[in-house]
Amino acid sequence: MVAYKRPIGVNVDLETGVIPGAKKLVRRLSDLRGYFLDEEAYNELLKDDPVVYEVYAMEQEEKEGDLNFATTVLYPGRVGKEFFFTKGHYHAKPNRAEIYYGIKGEGGMLLQTPEGEVEWIPMKAGTVVYVPPYWAHRTVNTGDEPFIFLAIYPADAGHDYGSIKERGFAKLVIEENGEIKLIDNPRWKD
Amino acid sequence: MVAYKRPIGVNVDLETGVIPGAKKLVRRLSDLRGYFLDEEAYNELLKDDPVVYEVYAMEQEEKEGDLNFATTVLYPGRVGKEFFFTKGHYHAKPNRAEIYYGIKGEGGMLLQTPEGEVEWIPMKAGTVVYVPPYWAHRTVNTGDEPFIFLAIYPADAGHDYGSIKERGFAKLVIEENGEIKLIDNPRWKD
Repeated sequence: MVAYKRPIGVNVDLETGVIPGAKKLVRRLSDLRGYFLDEEAYNELLKDDPVVYEVYAMEQEEKEGDLNFATTVLYPGRVGKEFFFTKGHYHAKPNRAEIYYGIKGEGGMLLQTPEGEVEWIPMKAGTVVYVPPYWAHRTVNTGDEPFIFLAIYPADAGHDYGSIKERGFAKLVIEENGEIKLIDNPRWKD
Repeated sequence: MVAYKRPIGVNVDLETGVIPGAKKLVRRLSDLRGYFLDEEAYNELLKDDPVVYEVYAMEQEEKEGDLNFATTVLYPGRVGKEFFFTKGHYHAKPNRAEIYYGIKGEGGMLLQTPEGEVEWIPMKAGTVVYVPPYWAHRTVNTGDEPFIFLAIYPADAGHDYGSIKERGFAKLVIEENGEIKLIDNPRWKD
């Protein structure tokens, strides 16, 4: 007889995004060195080293067909004109997809193929985003309150953060004259 | 160059559960013949043949590592003492997991191993349920309004409805004296 894993039921705190009992990961601004364009603004803000985002993850062993889930609380803020964002990653197994579901706040997802084609999908409570295989993905908080969402991903997807850390995304999401804009990333290396 | 699939962003209607552009599936009471214990109550209710649930699915090709998502709107109601439920299924590839997220209303999930061990997990808005590999799963509406939830499952999981249609679940979820109870299924064939 197989030793079956136990089902899990957890209630996400819909105000804070916290999953009780989950593994918590905290990313401060200092963990995102080199990610933002405006280095002067980055260094100024670094004096306070604010939390940019927190992740509450319930993960399984890396086995084909199994699924992980996690909430992310992405705080509002900007570094220069750029909105706070998550590091962003491809999957280590690049043909793994991912699904996001917006719980609270406003933001969006920046997606990118390995060749640098970019898509931007606005998100709010109730938005489902399908991240197809091969696309890198980064979430961005374009609002004034924490942007909270749920992510579901194959347990064997893994993370490739290095490609994004080196090359970045081909587009930046900024605020200019009170508007949310996508502009070309001047440091993007095609 | 790989022909990349396009990212998808959709807004679930948080009042109705509808996903615009999704494939819609409707299950009426007549589609659930043989599933409920009380045949007299079933036949009486069949005169109106009410919709028991609707599914709005966004599905990909059956490829390893890809993910599907769907909302379900499970209506309130009973057949005799038994609450309305979905058919319930194992996965055709039995080692595929699934994740559910409660959007609106109240209910729960009945899970069962191939050997007939049962678990019951209550669900409301914000509840995440992890369905481990090998467990059959059925959702039940124990409330007075539509129970709406999101499901994410591997694109190659497939459905095995036959095992549940033949054997059912070892437990029934009923209302008795205003209380929600789990009782042994007298028709369960071990």
